[in-house]
Amino acid sequence: MLTAIASASLERELKAILGPDAVLPGTTRAYLSDATESRNLTGKADAIALPTTAEQAAQTVAWCYEHDVPITPRGGGTGFTGGAVPTDGGVVLGLERLNQLRHLDPGLWRAAAEAGMITSDLRRRARENGLFYPPDPGSAEQSHLGGNIATNAGGPHAFKYGVTGAWITGLEVVLAPGELVKLGGAIRKDVAGYDLKSLLIGSEGTLGIVTAAWVKLIPAPEAALPLAAVYSDARTGCAAIEAALSSGTIPAALEYLDAGAVRATRGAFPVEIPDAASFMVIADADGTAEEAAKSHDELQQALGEDALLIHAPTQNKDINALWRWRDGASLAVTAQRGGKVSEDIVVPVDRLREAIEQTVEIGRRHDPRTCSWGHAGDGNLHSTFMIDRDDPGELHRAEQAAQELFALAVELGGSISGEHGVGLVKNGQLARQWAPEAIAMHVAIKRAFDPKGLLNPGKKLART
Amino acid sequence: MLTAIASASLERELKAILGPDAVLPGTTRAYLSDATESRNLTGKADAIALPTTAEQAAQTVAWCYEHDVPITPRGGGTGFTGGAVPTDGGVVLGLERLNQLRHLDPGLWRAAAEAGMITSDLRRRARENGLFYPPDPGSAEQSHLGGNIATNAGGPHAFKYGVTGAWITGLEVVLAPGELVKLGGAIRKDVAGYDLKSLLIGSEGTLGIVTAAWVKLIPAPEAALPLAAVYSDARTGCAAIEAALSSGTIPAALEYLDAGAVRATRGAFPVEIPDAASFMVIADADGTAEEAAKSHDELQQALGEDALLIHAPTQNKDINALWRWRDGASLAVTAQRGGKVSEDIVVPVDRLREAIEQTVEIGRRHDPRTCSWGHAGDGNLHSTFMIDRDDPGELHRAEQAAQELFALAVELGGSISGEHGVGLVKNGQLARQWAPEAIAMHVAIKRAFDPKGLLNPGKKLART
Repeated sequence: MLTAIASASLERELKAILGPDAVLPGTTRAYLSDATESRNLTGKADAIALPTTAEQAAQTVAWCYEHDVPITPRGGGTGFTGGAVPTDGGVVLGLERLNQLRHLDPGLWRAAAEAGMITSDLRRRARENGLFYPPDPGSAEQSHLGGNIATNAGGPHAFKYGVTGAWITGLEVVLAPGELVKLGGAIRKDVAGYDLKSLLIGSEGTLGIVTAAWVKLIPAPEAALPLAAVYSDARTGCAAIEAALSSGTIPAALEYLDAGAVRATRGAFPVEIPDAASFMVIADADGTAEEAAKSHDELQQALGEDALLIHAPTQNKDINALWRWRDGASLAVTAQRGGKVSEDIVVPVDRLREAIEQTVEIGRRHDPRTCSWGHAGDGNLHSTFMIDRDDPGELHRAEQAAQELFALAVELGGSISGEHGVGLVKNGQLARQWAPEAIAMHVAIKRAFDPKGLLNPGKKLART
Repeated sequence: MLTAIASASLERELKAILGPDAVLPGTTRAYLSDATESRNLTGKADAIALPTTAEQAAQTVAWCYEHDVPITPRGGGTGFTGGAVPTDGGVVLGLERLNQLRHLDPGLWRAAAEAGMITSDLRRRARENGLFYPPDPGSAEQSHLGGNIATNAGGPHAFKYGVTGAWITGLEVVLAPGELVKLGGAIRKDVAGYDLKSLLIGSEGTLGIVTAAWVKLIPAPEAALPLAAVYSDARTGCAAIEAALSSGTIPAALEYLDAGAVRATRGAFPVEIPDAASFMVIADADGTAEEAAKSHDELQQALGEDALLIHAPTQNKDINALWRWRDGASLAVTAQRGGKVSEDIVVPVDRLREAIEQTVEIGRRHDPRTCSWGHAGDGNLHSTFMIDRDDPGELHRAEQAAQELFALAVELGGSISGEHGVGLVKNGQLARQWAPEAIAMHVAIKRAFDPKGLLNPGKKLART
């Protein structure tokens, strides 16, 4: 942090670059935290910079880099790891005004959008033109494309369609010490250089700051028919998930909720669920109308065998109700005890049941109540410890439990994070998962891209 | 190159690590060149090492790294850029004996295979289990999975399914100075660290040597129905390609041949083609039987409007004949004059027509006869100068023409390479395409991964 005088001078300098309306005081609370729940992560900044053009963003980075001022990039602030929390003071570089759809070429299946564009706006604009931008992270109504790129965000439909990175064909990015650079573009293949684009995607603003992206689109599926099946336990439910995979059809999404998550959400479920229900699988079937119907039948058969109940809505309003309920699962879990510590481990899909059961076991050992739900087909759990957010002891125990969860993920051949990234809260955890030589490359890459260590400092650290 | 005595001692040392049968003399010609046509690229090596395990591969790299011996990794030797040609002597590390399918889990849509596995063997093994490994590079019958990963190989069906990297969930790789490291695995999502996996994919063995990979699979499409449409010129044909994109269906492949390529291949086409035919589009429709049929109809309608002829085989033998003919296109072009210089530029798909026409223009200026064909939907041309391979003047003129081709690709917002990579023949071309700051990162990454510059030295150079 700077002194108050230095801070005022920094604000003045940034206003000279960006204009008086584009710089807010560093104390503006809305820019100091993200959606990391129950962990009271609030940072400190000397100024908030809100550029309206990529060139202004580059100029801001250049000025900061020259003056050794840390830069914390910020998208929609919906992250779960403290990735957008400014820890060292300096400038929060908010990209919300860089929100233009620069191009949309429906006949060519592509668009170019600025980093601050809200994910659901991009999805909607594509839809209006008969096209589909598949990534659907949970917070799509608030999250930005740039933030999705920074964490390589997933979502339910990543199972069939892949995560954000699968749809990005080019990046416009500010590299240190403040140059606006283009990697890729409106092209669908490129092996000319090392894949810096993919290296930037998921780097959480620690290697460069994305200002815009070129995205691939596809013709929108004509129909999407979800179904939800409930089971008496995780064993039966996980067997049903494997049956769905063996059915020969490709579900667009394949989600699950464990006993605790079913308990937290059953009251709001669109239809009544049997008391014995302790596990739920949600699958989505999409494609042409015929294809979706056929896939839906196949999934219904595969998931139905040992189900206590199948809810397979066919009317749009009922389909929307089911997804609205699914979108509300995270909040419903929070509501149980007022707070939660929720991690996003990944395991090979055949270890899903073990991961679900061990999540509960770990919670039991450390006391907090536990549940999980998530992207079953991708082996991606939201393993969650429900806590009273005003009780520091509970938070502490949940954080200890999270450590065991990370160890579990690695032990099962998985990853400590499938969607949320590392941010602040998982710093150093990568060493569980990667060999020292790979960790050394992680550190060397950071040093090459950000020799002064000013780009989102203190985040995504391979070592602590 | 070492002296003869040093070379003999190197062979002895490697035999001590790998066994007497796993080391061949450096003069073994089959290991000194690749499929780069008409350029007489033959290298020199001191020894050929053929490990049978990943650990042996790591030991070989460790020994070489300690003794400052260059290592040129080699897959199927089907590359088009000299990427597998040993230029500095040292050891050719052939991965052909590392060819095991380590796992195939049909119910879980995944496999793990060693680098030396032949691409078509992996495709076949998946198929036998009802699954599909989509990448289909032109030389799939000879190329290796490891080589496909080294170049991030594409193929016709990359249009719908993406290139090799889209199917790789994990790598086992030897990093300098000789450590066997795992990045990712049998998991479908991972944002724990920087995306080193994607950085390694397409790095042409210059950052590390891939020994095995975990791959994603999907249920095999029930049916695939191709069709070929011929047009009087590139203008009409490219308009038909855009009409196909606007039809609302997703072709599995969308290929083209220009006038010269049609001329070179028409004799072998399964049915008679009108004399006026100077452009061809091939599309493939796949999915369930109903879906493939519907998509096929839609493509036929979109491509048919201005076509001189549509050939839409429905019997397996006729479908196979069409693809066999397509697979032979490259050889048929070579046969025209005995040799060719063929590049693989990429452009945004709306610049395809311009790139096709300019390819011919460039050829005209430099004299060699010219044609192009390739992956229309991906904007990926195989722009080809047909030459007499025994005439050094023609080769020289073709290489000059290739320089203009690279400039054209960049001018049109594209890339100098979509499939083949840089190897030897495109060294330094990246500077046309990337800003100096990005080039600097390319160089810094190479230095971090390979401080001694021994991993496939002289290849994929951003600067020369």
